[in-house]
Amino acid sequence: MLSNHKLYAYLHEEILPLESAYLHVSDLAIQRGYGIFDFFKTHHGQPLFLEDYLNRFYASALLMGLEVPLSEEELVATITGLIQMNGLSESGVKMLLTGGYSENGYNPGPPNLIMMEQPLTLPSEAQVATGIKVITHEYVRELAAAKTINYIVGIKLIQQVKAKGADDVLYHQKGVVSEFPRSNFFLVKEDNTILTPAHEILKGITRKNVLELAGKKYRVEEGTVTLDDIAQAKEAFMTSTTKRVLPIVEVDGNPIGDGKPGTVSLDLLQDLIALEEAQITAV
Amino acid sequence: MLSNHKLYAYLHEEILPLESAYLHVSDLAIQRGYGIFDFFKTHHGQPLFLEDYLNRFYASALLMGLEVPLSEEELVATITGLIQMNGLSESGVKMLLTGGYSENGYNPGPPNLIMMEQPLTLPSEAQVATGIKVITHEYVRELAAAKTINYIVGIKLIQQVKAKGADDVLYHQKGVVSEFPRSNFFLVKEDNTILTPAHEILKGITRKNVLELAGKKYRVEEGTVTLDDIAQAKEAFMTSTTKRVLPIVEVDGNPIGDGKPGTVSLDLLQDLIALEEAQITAV
Repeated sequence: MLSNHKLYAYLHEEILPLESAYLHVSDLAIQRGYGIFDFFKTHHGQPLFLEDYLNRFYASALLMGLEVPLSEEELVATITGLIQMNGLSESGVKMLLTGGYSENGYNPGPPNLIMMEQPLTLPSEAQVATGIKVITHEYVRELAAAKTINYIVGIKLIQQVKAKGADDVLYHQKGVVSEFPRSNFFLVKEDNTILTPAHEILKGITRKNVLELAGKKYRVEEGTVTLDDIAQAKEAFMTSTTKRVLPIVEVDGNPIGDGKPGTVSLDLLQDLIALEEAQITAV
Repeated sequence: MLSNHKLYAYLHEEILPLESAYLHVSDLAIQRGYGIFDFFKTHHGQPLFLEDYLNRFYASALLMGLEVPLSEEELVATITGLIQMNGLSESGVKMLLTGGYSENGYNPGPPNLIMMEQPLTLPSEAQVATGIKVITHEYVRELAAAKTINYIVGIKLIQQVKAKGADDVLYHQKGVVSEFPRSNFFLVKEDNTILTPAHEILKGITRKNVLELAGKKYRVEEGTVTLDDIAQAKEAFMTSTTKRVLPIVEVDGNPIGDGKPGTVSLDLLQDLIALEEAQITAV
């Protein structure tokens, strides 16, 4: 059904069928992997926490020296138009800004802005109840504070993650944990303190929301998290726009706590779902 | 004149006008900066050292888990066809292999192979006689042995290089020098020993040719090169396909030797030019 749903995208100042959205090969994303993006979700056709995602999008663009060709007001109007055209209730919207068409294949041109929307399925209750298994890998993202399109290490590792029967890969440097390719990492200590890495990470919007929610009920620390901390943890979970709060039950083959999703993790997921629902304007 | 020269490219199994070479936005180079490439030059319409570049192209693809959709024989036939169509005497040919059209914006699809050819101007005698100024920056390329399309750091630094009145940026990590974004680094010691970094670099084809040529006349070392070594050096130069041997006269505002292109550097450039000429089959 959804595969027959005709989707539209935004490119070169117009909304056009997604299937017709093409970039010339001189674009600096293709030539040199140069670009930034952001990604938010809609619920009942309404963007969630849009302001936060827009702020991060403009901040990433600034960090990478790319000028967003639309003002925030124009961007919101375009997003609204695109969402109306697509008519999806639950979706993910990607805003992508590339280094533009480059004359010499190295120096940026005027940036190309692309917006795409796709149907989104959040983790099912069964997936949450099972939790996920992860492996670790020594790596720290370049320019971690900017949401660049550079995922060469994460994508190269897909086969390795699969071969080990895992669902994702957690980055660390000399035992100091940072993040997943597309998600943030949290653990819950024996005393219910909630700990998440503070440095060399992309600051997720879901991470921010979960920190706020957690702060109302638990002790919360942003700081240094090590692989040793994980070995001692009672619970662990990842956060992201598409994963919300997803329990981690195994790291490098070793169970976290009793090897089942923990009560604090599941409690925070319920709080996040309630926060998301509360964002929706009654129609 | 050249700007009116109609250029052709290869994409999706056909040779087509470069101006019509477009990739769908779902391509993993656009979505996630995932791809590899290589770049060789032609002289009198003939590729130079093609076998070396093809070997590195296939090696980069293998390292990144991408399958080149053409055999080496088919690739050579395509290159030959493209060069004939374009009719350029002196050119650069780029072969680019992306992660392909991705269903979910993360997992690779069948790779897209693109070939582009552009007119190429090598450094003039005046540029060689002037030499270049460079700055340094602490960074080491991810997966340095593969020629990936990830240049986010190099391109982000363009403005900084320009602001400092320099021509390029040399990467080092804790004082250990590796390479330029697109070139290798060499220095000449007081005793005429030629030294170049051995690790965390892309092994340039021009680097390899220069090492071979230098080995016939001078003592040559591949090893660890530090910023201190640069401070003591008599000469320095960069090597690449498009720069050949280009003297470096200043690093971070400090002159190399007497601040002028050195005799060993200029001697090696002449040897390289002779080697290139010797590759050309008489027509």
